[in-house]
Parts: sequence; C-alpha cells; structure tokens
Amino acid sequence: MPQLTIRGIAPEQVIAISEAMVQQLADVCGCGTDNFTLDCLQTVSAMDGKRVDTYPFVEVAWFERGSQTRDLFAETIMKHFLTAGVREVEIAFKVYSQDGYYINGVRCDKL
Amino acid sequence: MPQLTIRGIAPEQVIAISEAMVQQLADVCGCGTDNFTLDCLQTVSAMDGKRVDTYPFVEVAWFERGSQTRDLFAETIMKHFLTAGVREVEIAFKVYSQDGYYINGVRCDKL
Amino acid sequence: MPQLTIRGIAPEQVIAISEAMVQQLADVCGCGTDNFTLDCLQTVSAMDGKRVDTYPFVEVAWFERGSQTRDLFAETIMKHFLTAGVREVEIAFKVYSQDGYYINGVRCDKL
Repeated sequence: MPQLTIRGIAPEQVIAISEAMVQQLADVCGCGTDNFTLDCLQTVSAMDGKRVDTYPFVEVAWFERGSQTRDLFAETIMKHFLTAGVREVEIAFKVYSQDGYYINGVRCDKL
Repeated sequence: MPQLTIRGIAPEQVIAISEAMVQQLADVCGCGTDNFTLDCLQTVSAMDGKRVDTYPFVEVAWFERGSQTRDLFAETIMKHFLTAGVREVEIAFKVYSQDGYYINGVRCDKL
Repeated sequence: MPQLTIRGIAPEQVIAISEAMVQQLADVCGCGTDNFTLDCLQTVSAMDGKRVDTYPFVEVAWFERGSQTRDLFAETIMKHFLTAGVREVEIAFKVYSQDGYYINGVRCDKL
C-alpha cells in the first residue's frame, strides 16, 4: 500500500508513467516506492444500450494520511496522467484500517 | 458516480438494460444520467475445487443518499436485472466521502 | 458473503485450494460454505516502467465479525495459500454494513 487500482486507462499508458509517478507519490507519502502497487482492471462498460469506453478511474486504497497528503497525492496522479494523455480522471480514496489489514498473516497494527 | 461495478453478469446483458436502468436510477437520485458508470469486471471464480460461474454481484459506489433512496436504487437494479434474465443478485453499497473524492484533481467537497 | 476477491494469484491455484479453504473458513465463521464466493480478478500491473506480476492480494468483503474471527480468517487464508505455493500475500478486510447490502432486493438488516 498505497494500492492504485485503475480502470479506463490502457495498461501501456500506466506502464509508461509508472516509474516517475510512483517516485513522486513515494516522496509525497515519505515512504519507499516498493510499498506501491499499480493494478489495471480489465472492464467492459455499458451506457445507452452500447458498449462504451470505461471512464478513467483510480481507486487508491491506503491507510489514512490526512487531507494535505491526500490532496497532493491526487494532484500528483492527475499530473502524471495528463502527461500520459489522459485528459480526465476521477480518483477515490478507500481507507483500510490497520487492524483489518494483514501482511503475510500478521495484522498491521501489531507490526 | 454513482458507479456500478458488476461481476457475474454477461456484459451483453448489462448493455441490453443499460439505457432504461440508468434513466430510472437517475430519476431515483434526481441527477443526470451522465453521472453514472456501469463497469463489468472479468472474473474467474472457484468453489469446491472447480471453476464455477461468478455469483451475480453489483457494488454501487456513491456518496450516501439515505436509506429511502438506497432501497429504491437497489430495487430498481433488481427489477432491470430480472428483465435481463438475471434471477438472483446481491448488491452492496460502498460509500465514498466527498473529501476523499477528486474530479480532475479537485476535491468534491470544494466543488 | 464473505466474498474473497483475489488478484495476483493464478485462478488454477485458487481452484486447487478452494474446497479445503472454504470448508475451514466456514468453520471459522460458523456459517455454511455456500455463503462464500472466491473471485479472481484479471489485472495488468505496472512498476518501474515495466509490466510486472501483480502482487498477491485478497480483499475480504464481509459483515464485521470481530478481531478474533478476523485474525483466524486471515491466518486460514494464509495457510492455504502457502500450501498452494503462494509465499506472500496481503489481505484486507472491507466491511459492508447490513443496511447497505441487498439480497435479491431485500435489505439484509430486514432479513
């Protein structure tokens, strides 16, 4: 964590920005880049009786870090996605609690 | 948002009902149809040592709108899925907070 | 529910352990095995400008059952995944509320 789950953006675009974006996100969080994951979901989207492109969306799963870090984190994602040619994106933060998160069987609030 | 993430139902079935369902869901919410997204996830499911069909499931991500709207929203999804031939479905609501949701880099509680 | 959504682990590995794992998880929860779903997501992951293997991750969606059951639940998943050759995995619990969960249109807190 943080874990970015991405839909509506081609994996190639995510791969292209992954190095620079994760480096900067790690700076924002004050943690190592190896804490991050970027996973692209394969989706089929529907609207008005037709198959449509999936709207670009990123769900960030993390432990709460406060609004200042969150704002900067979202801004950083947006900036790199713009670089990759993604012109609009919505980003939602999903907060996991440390006592409900287990790394190799060990609860995070006990680490 | 609202964002419907769907598994266990063929994209073709979702496409078929998308226009009528979204129109009615927009009426329930009192918002425009262009706020909605319907994304089908591709999944492989397992049970009893075998690959099985994915159980039909919809996760609705939205900002909380109260139990009356929520009940009607779920009922509307159910009704349209029945029309599409889906005989059982579970629906879960996931609430995003406005201060953790960003549209093109701008936090929703500041819009 | 509980609903296990899995990424970064081959469906074949999940299928192989599904019977024994779900039996034991049902014992942990004191419920029937038919309440469970195991869904594998198809993902493409990125890091350092390259496509990489998705980090093994399980999101458990359920109604809160307390920390003792949760610890045992995570331990049970970990144990079976080790058996399947998965050497590391992170597990996060996502709590749905009963008044936001609908089975065939009926809200769970009314069942």
